[in-house]
Amino acid sequence: MASNKIAVPKGTRDFSPAEMAKRNYIFDTIKTIFRKYGYQEIQTPSMENLETLTGKYGEEGDKLIFKILDSGEFLEKTTTIAELQELLEMTYETLEQQAIIENELKKSETNSIEIPKLTLQELENFTLLQTAYRTNVINYVKEYLTSKNLLRQISEKALRYDLTVPFARYVVSHQSEITFPFKRFQVQPVWRADRPQKGRYREFYQCDADVVGSDSLLNEAEFILIYDEALSNFGLKDFTIKINNRKILLGIAEIIGKPELIVDMTIAIDKLDKIGMEGVNKELLERGFTEGDLQKLTPIILLKGSNDDKLSALKEVLQSSEIGLKGIEELDTVFTYLKNVPLKTAKLELDITLARGLNYYTGAIFEVKTNEVAIGSIGGGGRYDDLTGMFGLKNLTGAGISFGADRIYDVLEELKLFPEDATQGTQVLICCFDREFENYGFRLVNQLREKKIRAELYPPGAKIKKQLDYANNKKIPYTIVIGSEEMQSGLLSLKNMQTGEQQKLPVDAILEKLLA
Amino acid sequence: MASNKIAVPKGTRDFSPAEMAKRNYIFDTIKTIFRKYGYQEIQTPSMENLETLTGKYGEEGDKLIFKILDSGEFLEKTTTIAELQELLEMTYETLEQQAIIENELKKSETNSIEIPKLTLQELENFTLLQTAYRTNVINYVKEYLTSKNLLRQISEKALRYDLTVPFARYVVSHQSEITFPFKRFQVQPVWRADRPQKGRYREFYQCDADVVGSDSLLNEAEFILIYDEALSNFGLKDFTIKINNRKILLGIAEIIGKPELIVDMTIAIDKLDKIGMEGVNKELLERGFTEGDLQKLTPIILLKGSNDDKLSALKEVLQSSEIGLKGIEELDTVFTYLKNVPLKTAKLELDITLARGLNYYTGAIFEVKTNEVAIGSIGGGGRYDDLTGMFGLKNLTGAGISFGADRIYDVLEELKLFPEDATQGTQVLICCFDREFENYGFRLVNQLREKKIRAELYPPGAKIKKQLDYANNKKIPYTIVIGSEEMQSGLLSLKNMQTGEQQKLPVDAILEKLLA
Repeated sequence: MASNKIAVPKGTRDFSPAEMAKRNYIFDTIKTIFRKYGYQEIQTPSMENLETLTGKYGEEGDKLIFKILDSGEFLEKTTTIAELQELLEMTYETLEQQAIIENELKKSETNSIEIPKLTLQELENFTLLQTAYRTNVINYVKEYLTSKNLLRQISEKALRYDLTVPFARYVVSHQSEITFPFKRFQVQPVWRADRPQKGRYREFYQCDADVVGSDSLLNEAEFILIYDEALSNFGLKDFTIKINNRKILLGIAEIIGKPELIVDMTIAIDKLDKIGMEGVNKELLERGFTEGDLQKLTPIILLKGSNDDKLSALKEVLQSSEIGLKGIEELDTVFTYLKNVPLKTAKLELDITLARGLNYYTGAIFEVKTNEVAIGSIGGGGRYDDLTGMFGLKNLTGAGISFGADRIYDVLEELKLFPEDATQGTQVLICCFDREFENYGFRLVNQLREKKIRAELYPPGAKIKKQLDYANNKKIPYTIVIGSEEMQSGLLSLKNMQTGEQQKLPVDAILEKLLA
Repeated sequence: MASNKIAVPKGTRDFSPAEMAKRNYIFDTIKTIFRKYGYQEIQTPSMENLETLTGKYGEEGDKLIFKILDSGEFLEKTTTIAELQELLEMTYETLEQQAIIENELKKSETNSIEIPKLTLQELENFTLLQTAYRTNVINYVKEYLTSKNLLRQISEKALRYDLTVPFARYVVSHQSEITFPFKRFQVQPVWRADRPQKGRYREFYQCDADVVGSDSLLNEAEFILIYDEALSNFGLKDFTIKINNRKILLGIAEIIGKPELIVDMTIAIDKLDKIGMEGVNKELLERGFTEGDLQKLTPIILLKGSNDDKLSALKEVLQSSEIGLKGIEELDTVFTYLKNVPLKTAKLELDITLARGLNYYTGAIFEVKTNEVAIGSIGGGGRYDDLTGMFGLKNLTGAGISFGADRIYDVLEELKLFPEDATQGTQVLICCFDREFENYGFRLVNQLREKKIRAELYPPGAKIKKQLDYANNKKIPYTIVIGSEEMQSGLLSLKNMQTGEQQKLPVDAILEKLLA
């Protein structure tokens, strides 16, 4: 396909100047806030060793990891070829050990110790054997190629699937240089070989902040403040930060007497929004809960009122569960911290049905949703007690959050919240009537730049209309047209491209106006 | 290897908070200047379709492209397996068509129309044939696997090798939306399966600005200003921007009467710095030039004096070469523009021996070197007349430059030029003597953040020494320690961690001091 030559791979995107300006606005806003809260940026390589990534995302996740062929030309590597050759030799040897051909040949020998004779039938048999032999080779090669051995032979590296596992790897790699608690943020692309669809990409940015080495619940309180500040700064007026605690979910499963069904329970109640209480109950019954269990569960799930009301009710319900009470205490502590620092915009809501990736989190769980646009969650996170355990560093507790930058982009676009000045490129375009003014124009454009004004001189020689079209297309708010009159008088005409208003001003006054 | 689990792949790097702060300083400085000159950021996907990249970097370059396995689990794709099976069947058929075995078997048949008999010798032959057969299969499979067919089967995508080809692809993809001249910059990682060594990485950032759709030499003049401004801002005191023009090189080859040896000529004279005039002459003779040619060439190569002196001398030498004179005129125009806008720091030097990737550039060529640190070029670029031609869009002239961010990093590090404030993380750490002060501390830290001060509250409960160590390790310049006295008096003690100086101040005074 010729068109393929100028197409990007499925599920990936080009970002135009206008899109990049908006994306940068989102990332810069979030990064500034992360930094204000003491989080520092790190970056890890796009590729990790395959063994760093595999086994961390479940079987389905592993399949979505993009693997990289070794050194581009893996098959010219002698080791691989030698390996393949050895394998094929082995195949033959195996088959020979099975003595398929030899046995058959021997059969004809057994009748005579002398020169073996093959009958026509035997020759036909030999052809059949040849076919069997061939099929065996094919199967063996096929099996070999599909085995993980070959995959490891031809691919030792893969593109990162998220920022969390590389972060855990980073902490373990650099533990001796790191001062704990380690507060890091990371804004980098990740890759997933997922089936592309609307809003789901094969390359997308993640935007994470994590702290490891601190069990203080102040971290949880600060994450809520970070969400509140970032989304308020974006101009969102109505959004909810949902919070829950895995210990409370454990406590609930305990008091029902089915702690082993904790995962089933949370999977079912997590769907309350989508399938309603009836649907949840149906699923709970299917998953091994009894009608009696439901009678205990339903009132907990349907708890209403303020966060304090819910906590009080839960304290009653979970009084016999140590871990449940611990979860309540943790949430209570977070709420108490926040009473000292009121949220700007966010609603903070204790949501008992909030589960998220349960096998991962051990304490608080967060999820953020805007109530202005129907779109999934625009942020999430929680506390995990053993993230670095997978790389051999035990007992390092941490907590983290993530912003869904692509969704935030769509929300700000739909609500027209991208501020003009933050996404503004060039501020003024200088146009020359004729080439003879180009040196004057060149001096002027650099005079403006000297004052940190983003300015361009349109390459002289083009018609003024073309130059003004350029300004309009690039959404440059001001133009200055230079002709002989302007050069002589030193009065330049500054045109506001939106209003059409024109003013004759000396350079100093123009500078002042543009810097205002 | 267990250690592999926490190691990054060869040739890739983790960037710590301290390193990231410095890298961000470099990128932010360059990006700000690009924007001031009207360049706008774009991003292209990390992966491109294989056919977008292959054939663009020469045979050696193609080998260094990192290819990505399709969808992670390519070998489970039925098409690939079916294809492989078909191939193996084909191999056998081919071999059978060659009738290696059949012929041999037939040989034994020719002696008898009846039942074929195999002698012991014939049986031995058969075993030999079997071996030949086996070897053929192995070779065939090997060949198949190395052929581009399989590579295309298992890999349709690759990581970008540079930013230039994806940019050309972008321009062609988006030509209908783009307003020309299109001034774009791009700062993204690229990947090369090169043998890693000191200063050469498999993943590194490129930092490019290009303009396409404008033949104005103002662009060349502005690129020189951009280099000058960026490197001056970094605090470099002594650096040279070398400039040449490919048309001048063509002209020189023309007046010698060997235009067909232009590539040989430039390869040889490009080495003047390294091997001296004698070495260059030796190489020129080897490459097909005569002693007579050298007599014409040497004085041109050794031209001394100001840029204007060199241009005058060249005008004399190249008077009979139309293209040579065009090159001189182009350089002259660039120098004339720059007489209106003096350079801040850079030396601009016309260097006749400067060649760079000749098959690529058609006009100006740039290279930037610092004279303070012995390191290769820290920037380069030039004009090309047909970049997008490779994707079918003809006659779109352009010019571009690139900054070598990794080398600039090393230079700034060696010269200790990273400014402290630009790489400063958290500005103040609040430490509590005891947990009872944590709510006070939490209010205070958020009060500071409200004023855009980057502030942290150390999770209360730890010893003060540990908290101050944290500040020192993170290079936080100020700390505030809170005890009962401070809480009661409202006078907080602000400590300068570098001087050890301590001041008792009310919050407002602290804010003022930190905001100063």
